[in-house]
Amino acid sequence: MTVGKFCSREVVVASKDSTIIDVARLMRQHHVGDVVIVDSNGNGDQPKPIGIITDRDIVVELIACEVSFDAVSVGDVMSFELITAREQDSIWKTLHRLRTKGVRRIPVVNDEGGLEGILTVDDLLELLAEELILLAKVPAREQMLEKETKP
Amino acid sequence: MTVGKFCSREVVVASKDSTIIDVARLMRQHHVGDVVIVDSNGNGDQPKPIGIITDRDIVVELIACEVSFDAVSVGDVMSFELITAREQDSIWKTLHRLRTKGVRRIPVVNDEGGLEGILTVDDLLELLAEELILLAKVPAREQMLEKETKP
Amino acid sequence: MTVGKFCSREVVVASKDSTIIDVARLMRQHHVGDVVIVDSNGNGDQPKPIGIITDRDIVVELIACEVSFDAVSVGDVMSFELITAREQDSIWKTLHRLRTKGVRRIPVVNDEGGLEGILTVDDLLELLAEELILLAKVPAREQMLEKETKP
Amino acid sequence: MTVGKFCSREVVVASKDSTIIDVARLMRQHHVGDVVIVDSNGNGDQPKPIGIITDRDIVVELIACEVSFDAVSVGDVMSFELITAREQDSIWKTLHRLRTKGVRRIPVVNDEGGLEGILTVDDLLELLAEELILLAKVPAREQMLEKETKP
Repeated sequence: MTVGKFCSREVVVASKDSTIIDVARLMRQHHVGDVVIVDSNGNGDQPKPIGIITDRDIVVELIACEVSFDAVSVGDVMSFELITAREQDSIWKTLHRLRTKGVRRIPVVNDEGGLEGILTVDDLLELLAEELILLAKVPAREQMLEKETKP
Repeated sequence: MTVGKFCSREVVVASKDSTIIDVARLMRQHHVGDVVIVDSNGNGDQPKPIGIITDRDIVVELIACEVSFDAVSVGDVMSFELITAREQDSIWKTLHRLRTKGVRRIPVVNDEGGLEGILTVDDLLELLAEELILLAKVPAREQMLEKETKP
Repeated sequence: MTVGKFCSREVVVASKDSTIIDVARLMRQHHVGDVVIVDSNGNGDQPKPIGIITDRDIVVELIACEVSFDAVSVGDVMSFELITAREQDSIWKTLHRLRTKGVRRIPVVNDEGGLEGILTVDDLLELLAEELILLAKVPAREQMLEKETKP
Repeated sequence: MTVGKFCSREVVVASKDSTIIDVARLMRQHHVGDVVIVDSNGNGDQPKPIGIITDRDIVVELIACEVSFDAVSVGDVMSFELITAREQDSIWKTLHRLRTKGVRRIPVVNDEGGLEGILTVDDLLELLAEELILLAKVPAREQMLEKETKP
């Protein structure tokens, strides 16, 4: 399975000039903990992700350090090293990258680098748990089919 | 959770004087791969498990060695060292014992040693998979409740 | 297994009179996303948990609503309905409560209501994944023991 | 991940003219519960799987029905409908097929139908359990990296 087939297509985005309060409002309004920061070049291309900002970033980078929200924009706070996955990447490979990089979410991009979706550790847990349920049901299925064919 | 709350109560049993063909018929009829061998002392007590025999035992102990079925009874073939779990044992502890002993199934007994049920690796996989599904649904549930309380 | 045997004993705490900035500093300093708010009655008893505050609460309750940090204390923001687990509660039961309540973490208390630890969804995922590994290793163990006893 | 990258390359095989005792000996000697029946056309091509026989088949099809081993060959007992996976098939798709078909093992073939390996439910459980461990470690990894970069 590829990342593109499984990731969520609903991504909450903001530009790097957004204020911290703008982003906090997006997090409240859309019930998400992260906002992907995108660069829209204005010529109609799919916006490209350039960073990500989480509710945690706002607390530990700004509030804990008493940085005034007026003094900074989202571009100053977002994670500088953005890790992305391509739509055609495999789920397995991407899971290993999340583990190595210690990140819980990864924006998904197309071949031109345009933002297409987001994949989270929570999504992957759901996927693996559902596959395990399938696996766990093989013995019962085997028994049921044996009952039918050899009653 | 205790083994007694979770194990299967339907156990296919035979006496140690049963023939191999008797046991094979039980396996076919009840669609199981193992039969618990019990000792009924005849005074009305719950029968006590004294061994277990699997379809595999019959193949590798008898057929592969060209032992005639007439020459042996189930008591000669069954696993001599029987591992049992008590109803009040914890699922965790029992899982660890299955792992250590390398067995896929364990008869469950009451305080008097009477047979009460059987617990298999397949049962435990189903249990863990279902718990994982619950765990995987916590984030979505959290988000849903946030949507309700802070729309 | 009980919650008391498995929960983490290191809990970051604050009083309800703490400022939001105090709590944000604790989150940064201890690398945690939640702080348990406790009531210390001053007579030497174990402090009792009265609420919990997460990095997300700070962002969606305060920043998104442009509430000044000077205007509120932690006690005004923390979750008003605190769900706790007792040390002797079973892991299974507690997992089901986390699912139903849609919370990712639960403070653990003793019989007097004193704070003893904290249990998170992340902890439980680790536990279940480790148990699954044990389960997955039963067949290989079974085969290895067969090789040893019936070479 | 593809089936070819993950399946076991060691498959125990027999021809359809083998006796039941031959196959039972293979199961004992190689500590396996299934033997893949192959058709070798004799011109040096990779043998093609044409059926599969398990220890259980021998017990429920032959012993339970008191069929004499002299009266049948492996070709009479093996599962008539053989389900195979191709090396390039995805693990996910194959897991779903195992579930639907209620089989615990599936021979893996190349483009010419030649036998290349075997994939079992036990293998897949190991894989999923290991991926879950990785997933479970993401939060600790995230915290560790935060400690390093923001001490």
